Amino acid sequence: MAGDQSPGLKGPRIWLKVDFGERGQIGPGKIALLRAIVAHASISAAAKSMGMSYRRAWMLIDELNQTIGRPVVETQVGGTTGGGARLTEQGRLLIDYYELLHKHAETGGGDELKALAKMLGLPR
Amino acid sequence: MAGDQSPGLKGPRIWLKVDFGERGQIGPGKIALLRAIVAHASISAAAKSMGMSYRRAWMLIDELNQTIGRPVVETQVGGTTGGGARLTEQGRLLIDYYELLHKHAETGGGDELKALAKMLGLPR
Repeated sequence: MAGDQSPGLKGPRIWLKVDFGERGQIGPGKIALLRAIVAHASISAAAKSMGMSYRRAWMLIDELNQTIGRPVVETQVGGTTGGGARLTEQGRLLIDYYELLHKHAETGGGDELKALAKMLGLPR
Repeated sequence: MAGDQSPGLKGPRIWLKVDFGERGQIGPGKIALLRAIVAHASISAAAKSMGMSYRRAWMLIDELNQTIGRPVVETQVGGTTGGGARLTEQGRLLIDYYELLHKHAETGGGDELKALAKMLGLPR
């Protein structure tokens, strides 16, 4: 049955964490938070959408700031919209960076990986 | 300081888990266990070397067997060497598969990833 794929079983999903040693780590949770901030234009709304406390969201953002050495999120206090948050250019680039790494992990490896997967009866 | 690398800060380390849905997951812990079985030719010695119980090691091996649909480890009971364990061909191929995936995640991405990392002040 090697190479046989069950119906609905597509390529595997990759979970990936990038470890920069003492500068910290970037993984799917932090990237999902950045994406949620883009979607909600607010840290508290982003945190809520992920079932995460505001405090935890800020902690993760602060860890990303430490890793990058610059802020990844900027906040506007008050104003007609009652404040809000958006990513800095660094924050947007960080999503791009992670997505590219992730895409390469999910699609890279070429024929050699395909051959190994087939011998193991695994998708891809 | 974008692109500036601290001394000793080489490329990031990637942690990677492959999720096959209901067929289970393959991550660094299970692969490290397979490598330890190669090194020690014994499940109990491999488990001990990783600070893991024998029971836990067997559970992880069984999960891998389920994922692949065939045994990844074979055991010899008794004999002149007092028994032992070694990987099946599937077990060996599984290490190759994971290592290739991992290598691609750590080295792939090419110029585009390098450019993004540089803009973010990250190694690689």
